[in-house]
Amino acid sequence: MTATAARTPADARARYRAGLAVPSSGEAPGHTQANLVVLPREWAWDMLLFGQRNPRPVPLLDVTDPGSCRTVLAPDADLRTDLPRYRVWRDGELADEPTDVTELWNDDLVAFLIGCSFSFETALLEAGVPVRNIEQGRNVSMYRTNRACRPAGRLSGPLVVSMRPVPASLVPTAVQVTARMPQVHGAPVHVGAPGALGIADLGRPDFGDPVEIEDGDVPVFWACGVTPQAALMASRPPFAITHAPGHMFVTDVPDAVHRQL
Amino acid sequence: MTATAARTPADARARYRAGLAVPSSGEAPGHTQANLVVLPREWAWDMLLFGQRNPRPVPLLDVTDPGSCRTVLAPDADLRTDLPRYRVWRDGELADEPTDVTELWNDDLVAFLIGCSFSFETALLEAGVPVRNIEQGRNVSMYRTNRACRPAGRLSGPLVVSMRPVPASLVPTAVQVTARMPQVHGAPVHVGAPGALGIADLGRPDFGDPVEIEDGDVPVFWACGVTPQAALMASRPPFAITHAPGHMFVTDVPDAVHRQL
Repeated sequence: MTATAARTPADARARYRAGLAVPSSGEAPGHTQANLVVLPREWAWDMLLFGQRNPRPVPLLDVTDPGSCRTVLAPDADLRTDLPRYRVWRDGELADEPTDVTELWNDDLVAFLIGCSFSFETALLEAGVPVRNIEQGRNVSMYRTNRACRPAGRLSGPLVVSMRPVPASLVPTAVQVTARMPQVHGAPVHVGAPGALGIADLGRPDFGDPVEIEDGDVPVFWACGVTPQAALMASRPPFAITHAPGHMFVTDVPDAVHRQL
Repeated sequence: MTATAARTPADARARYRAGLAVPSSGEAPGHTQANLVVLPREWAWDMLLFGQRNPRPVPLLDVTDPGSCRTVLAPDADLRTDLPRYRVWRDGELADEPTDVTELWNDDLVAFLIGCSFSFETALLEAGVPVRNIEQGRNVSMYRTNRACRPAGRLSGPLVVSMRPVPASLVPTAVQVTARMPQVHGAPVHVGAPGALGIADLGRPDFGDPVEIEDGDVPVFWACGVTPQAALMASRPPFAITHAPGHMFVTDVPDAVHRQL
């Protein structure tokens, strides 16, 4: 663990608030990082229902009151300033990537904080399951599948999955460890047989980087937090704010909180 | 198990649809029963957010599209006719207890189906944990506590708990069994020490019946599905429909589905 990685969540957020715009991977280890989606109130029902109906890809950790920039996940944080980088969307198109969205915030906005697989990658490593994308220094591979999410209002779209190659003898451990963490995507949705998910070539992911599958590894697929963003952008709300990829919200919540019996 | 208790969920619903108005306890054993709350769309956001923020007392199994009387929990069912008895509320006051609400249904209504402790009582019995309220032929004891739910919009109120006396040596088993079922209230919220929850006298529950605590039993408290109804009625929406107490919606979902790793 480097000195950089030893920062507390509050320290990390203070640096982002001051303008540091770097990916948050490895920051404040052991603390939950979250995806951010911010929408006008008129779209918030659809998003909240989409999360209720699709808890594996959309584990909602917190939903704010309209206009509030505060969350129970980090009571001292300000959601308008404390992420390293944001994306601003207008009519479904990327409009800007600022490091502060204070000027864009208003009383009509609702923020959704969604669990992220960083939490379960830590748990996998602790259980002795290698995480190939980390070993290889790459972003995880992500794929659109042939499985549809349950639609909610104007939101619909395919389940997007992340894939991690796991040594065959450790697949049961990987299932057990992640099944105990439903708030950060939970158990895999599929093990092996990528063709059955409609994935033709693991070497050509739809998002992220190709990750090499080592001899004896089996591809294991988890529901992915890209799912709600993909559904959202396809439905083109007039205005939205999200985190920039990899530039997550660092919460005060220990990852261990997500480990259920 | 009696002949009565061996009916399938579809059989049970058909009898209720035909007008049978009896409590659903023991019907279609092994299948999930659900609490029903139906609200105008204008109140639905508050209720959905209240569930997201208070998953222990308000485990949302399904939320319908506005106007729909269909649920994924039982695709052939009609929510307007298939419960044994309903309650109709106007401005927070009980207005009627019909066996059919077809005439009251309209395109503005959203139905919430909420997990119920019947599912985990079955699991407790299967694990060898006696369920005293069933043994004594009484309704479970329920109490308002001094713990507040997280408010959501116009909805706020205390956590309501159910109490089951459990032999001290079986308390760990009771915790483990129910912790694996978060969609039907999950692990207990409190074990022993009723005073710490603000409960002065276990013999005088706020809802349900007093249940005798046998020698060597410890009172164990679970979050209770009365919580959302109490919050809702206190906030006095202009119109609501719920199930009548004990007259639940019998779904097609096996209880075993709720048992997580």
